Amino acid sequence: MPLEPAGATPSAYAYPMLVKQLLHSARATAGGQEIVYRDRQRHSYRQFFERLNRLANALAGLGVGPGSTVAVMDWDSHRYLEAFFAVPMMGAVLQTVNVRLSPEQILYTLNHARADVLLVNAEFVPMLAIIKDQLETVKRFILISDDGATLGSFGIPYAGEYEALLAAASPDYDFPDFDENTRATTFYTTGTTGLPKGVYFSHRQLVLHTLAVATALGSAAGQGRVHRDDVYMPITPMFHVHAWGMPYLATMLGMKQVYPGRYSPDMLLKLIASEGVSFSHCVPTILHMLLADKAGADVDLSGCKMIIGGAAFPKGLAAAALARGMDVFSGYGMSETCPILTIAHVRSALPDVDAEAAERIRTGYPIPLVDLRTVDGDMLDVSRDGKATGEIVVRTPWLTQGYLHNPAASQDLWAGGYLHTGDIGAIDPRGMLTVTDRLKDVIKTGGEWVSSLELESIVSQHPAVTEVAVVGVKDDKWGERPLAMVVVKAGQAATADDIKAHVQRFADEGHISKFAVPDRVLFVDSLARTSVGKLNKKAMREQLAG
Amino acid sequence: MPLEPAGATPSAYAYPMLVKQLLHSARATAGGQEIVYRDRQRHSYRQFFERLNRLANALAGLGVGPGSTVAVMDWDSHRYLEAFFAVPMMGAVLQTVNVRLSPEQILYTLNHARADVLLVNAEFVPMLAIIKDQLETVKRFILISDDGATLGSFGIPYAGEYEALLAAASPDYDFPDFDENTRATTFYTTGTTGLPKGVYFSHRQLVLHTLAVATALGSAAGQGRVHRDDVYMPITPMFHVHAWGMPYLATMLGMKQVYPGRYSPDMLLKLIASEGVSFSHCVPTILHMLLADKAGADVDLSGCKMIIGGAAFPKGLAAAALARGMDVFSGYGMSETCPILTIAHVRSALPDVDAEAAERIRTGYPIPLVDLRTVDGDMLDVSRDGKATGEIVVRTPWLTQGYLHNPAASQDLWAGGYLHTGDIGAIDPRGMLTVTDRLKDVIKTGGEWVSSLELESIVSQHPAVTEVAVVGVKDDKWGERPLAMVVVKAGQAATADDIKAHVQRFADEGHISKFAVPDRVLFVDSLARTSVGKLNKKAMREQLAG
Repeated sequence: MPLEPAGATPSAYAYPMLVKQLLHSARATAGGQEIVYRDRQRHSYRQFFERLNRLANALAGLGVGPGSTVAVMDWDSHRYLEAFFAVPMMGAVLQTVNVRLSPEQILYTLNHARADVLLVNAEFVPMLAIIKDQLETVKRFILISDDGATLGSFGIPYAGEYEALLAAASPDYDFPDFDENTRATTFYTTGTTGLPKGVYFSHRQLVLHTLAVATALGSAAGQGRVHRDDVYMPITPMFHVHAWGMPYLATMLGMKQVYPGRYSPDMLLKLIASEGVSFSHCVPTILHMLLADKAGADVDLSGCKMIIGGAAFPKGLAAAALARGMDVFSGYGMSETCPILTIAHVRSALPDVDAEAAERIRTGYPIPLVDLRTVDGDMLDVSRDGKATGEIVVRTPWLTQGYLHNPAASQDLWAGGYLHTGDIGAIDPRGMLTVTDRLKDVIKTGGEWVSSLELESIVSQHPAVTEVAVVGVKDDKWGERPLAMVVVKAGQAATADDIKAHVQRFADEGHISKFAVPDRVLFVDSLARTSVGKLNKKAMREQLAG
Repeated sequence: MPLEPAGATPSAYAYPMLVKQLLHSARATAGGQEIVYRDRQRHSYRQFFERLNRLANALAGLGVGPGSTVAVMDWDSHRYLEAFFAVPMMGAVLQTVNVRLSPEQILYTLNHARADVLLVNAEFVPMLAIIKDQLETVKRFILISDDGATLGSFGIPYAGEYEALLAAASPDYDFPDFDENTRATTFYTTGTTGLPKGVYFSHRQLVLHTLAVATALGSAAGQGRVHRDDVYMPITPMFHVHAWGMPYLATMLGMKQVYPGRYSPDMLLKLIASEGVSFSHCVPTILHMLLADKAGADVDLSGCKMIIGGAAFPKGLAAAALARGMDVFSGYGMSETCPILTIAHVRSALPDVDAEAAERIRTGYPIPLVDLRTVDGDMLDVSRDGKATGEIVVRTPWLTQGYLHNPAASQDLWAGGYLHTGDIGAIDPRGMLTVTDRLKDVIKTGGEWVSSLELESIVSQHPAVTEVAVVGVKDDKWGERPLAMVVVKAGQAATADDIKAHVQRFADEGHISKFAVPDRVLFVDSLARTSVGKLNKKAMREQLAG
């Protein structure tokens, strides 16, 4: 017998899940709510809605329509938020350009994505000038400048300045309906190997990610609960996985939003204090920077909810944030996953701050609709006992359906019908996932697998250590051996033996294998990082091998 | 230029939004959580998941497969929850039968929906016996009985008893993927005129309703906030719009759930106390019954969140609930809308209990994805000034796409591409909707429209009044005139002049038109209600005219 179709009346509205539909409730209830840009501008949602119409008309005037690609190079701003909505709502694709890439990489991504129009902050114009003659598809440029001024045109034929174009455009625009599977956004992952790879998300995927993340964050019993009276500010760049999708969520819920421009600790802390920011997200490096800022040591961070992701969250850092009264907790995902898969909401009473920190650095519980497994090489589930590790593979409604124009990498990503995260993890009987390592960062020594992340977490708890990276180096006898690179806190000192003795205690107490104690400890001034601030272990390994 | 399609890798999983996908997060994290049935049974989610598999196998053994329709006649139970999931997850359609209809109406709905299998509580077997020979499509019957006993077969050829069939069935079942637009549920609206009309919802619609309602309830800043540590119990029947969809929501979030069987005040209050129920929903009549229950006067209801809907929420009743410490607030929707459209979360500090009650009885703010308008006869928006009234029309992703096998009524429902609620309302500048009346219950007197609901709310505030209904009666001079039917509280007394004087004060203070003061007040022992407990104004008008 065939499935029973839902059946529709001809005049019934077949509601497509489009980005524009996220605006209905905010439009009805939050017209007076504020959107703030640094200490420079603030306006209401009512004005925001009108600015979306003006931006769409301005872009349409430059030939943008369904199927066009509009690229943006800007720091986090109200303008970027406008592009998040207006560009996809026109049926065009928004390309969020990673401004921390090299000019050559940026050129590659703009050509590869076939961008038609580029919105560029004046700050990046000198860089753009280097590559402009090699742009294959970008024909029109819009200048973004906080004060309307430019540092010089550098030969870029601007169609106009952002605010001037909006002012000249009509405030009325009728965003059309179309297929919810239309591509809405694209951006490039910044792996440590090979060319950047493009991922892409449809309207349907963005809407479902927004709803599922809102459900997860809102349904917390207490800790880590996000609500519509929160004040939101991104501290993960908007070019990086749509700032984890949170601008869509904040707008849907009609929250007050604060956009900080280029990140600097003083501006971020100033905005947290002056605007009452209560909800944000960042990578561990940035949290470390905020907590270490001397001028901002007096800023009240208590109650500020902050999701930490993008890299392993060291326990020492979590403890330092908890000591400032912050509500920090991990989120897990990646560019390919839109990104949120799990959230580490604390679900039961914990005995002390140490236990709290230990729980909050774990990777988290799967949010609604996430089908998350840890599997062996045959795609069979490993035990959910909190000990057995396997590759984390997932299905959700918001995963990139491939890499742009890259069928081979797409096939690998989706081998066996599940998206392969390339991460190794363990799931405990409560459903809590802990990522133990990147598949490629596991250290294989004497037939055992040692987690570089676990070792980093242990070393970070030494009182003199401020940052640490552990990598495997080739060893004739053992295959690989762990090596720790350590940055010591200003005014503190430690020897390699101090660090080894510290790690040895964890081995003696049975927390880690005795094979995990590093043979070598190198003291360095800083750690190699990728363009988005993650530890660049490939570069470290190459440096050590060379 | 064509729209850019999302583009999929052949092996990528095109995640369909199916009811089964709501189970992922609970399956991962809530295996030990409890599901309770009255004082008779309790089991874990882990057992629940296994029971879904067993039910599917038992039904498959009776020939149920994709496209089949499985009807259920039961009070609210763990079994009903199992049918909510297992039946649609097989690709079959769940028909939730309104057991309060007459045998003739039930016969009509079973034949009209072409039900194949019927699960029937022993309590309804005598009624079933009356109609069994006229059933056109139902061929198999499963007996539901709390103690496995039957009151006699009444000639029904049972395939077996529910628990026995589950015990005999395999605990393994692989629920398939299929098109998310497949019909998942159907049930019949109980209008006061004509034959029952069938509405129907797809998997996609149920999933989106669940996510959007969870987002709305979770994002409240404080008042009315639902979270995963709540204990849920329905007090709106599961046959009525899936108990407002809350069993899906509670299961997705892994909440403890309590099912009360047939509603009686003593059992409901006992379960609230013994199981710690903190989240429910009901119609005003039931809330009134709970608050009026003498034996339950000592039950601590403080902090219990309760959404009130299905009928106008009298202010006096809200005040009485607030005085018991309950967190009562309105929700708005109807059978055709799955049902939730708005939630009356209080968004700002209110000066006193009176103002609180006034806010909480209002209809509420649209939840995410809801495009809700108040329009005139030409489908043009009326002003959102809180005063202008128009018909409430909506678009959301979870509206019935028509009435089953009824194209004419479907066309009326969806005239102009919006679903017509048949309700009259006003939207204020904050986005708060207030339903002022049913389109057909507005009293037209002397060229003015008087809201019967507003009058009922005023009369209900008279200290001697426990229930009231206001209807329009024909009048040669004015067209219609309002008439109030009043039930007086036990041990209290009031005259028609008392009531009229009470209403006159509201007219003198400018709250209502002087034309709204009723000419006649009738004192009655009880008010005519429909099968789902709503005031039956059609019956009242006929009675008064006859």
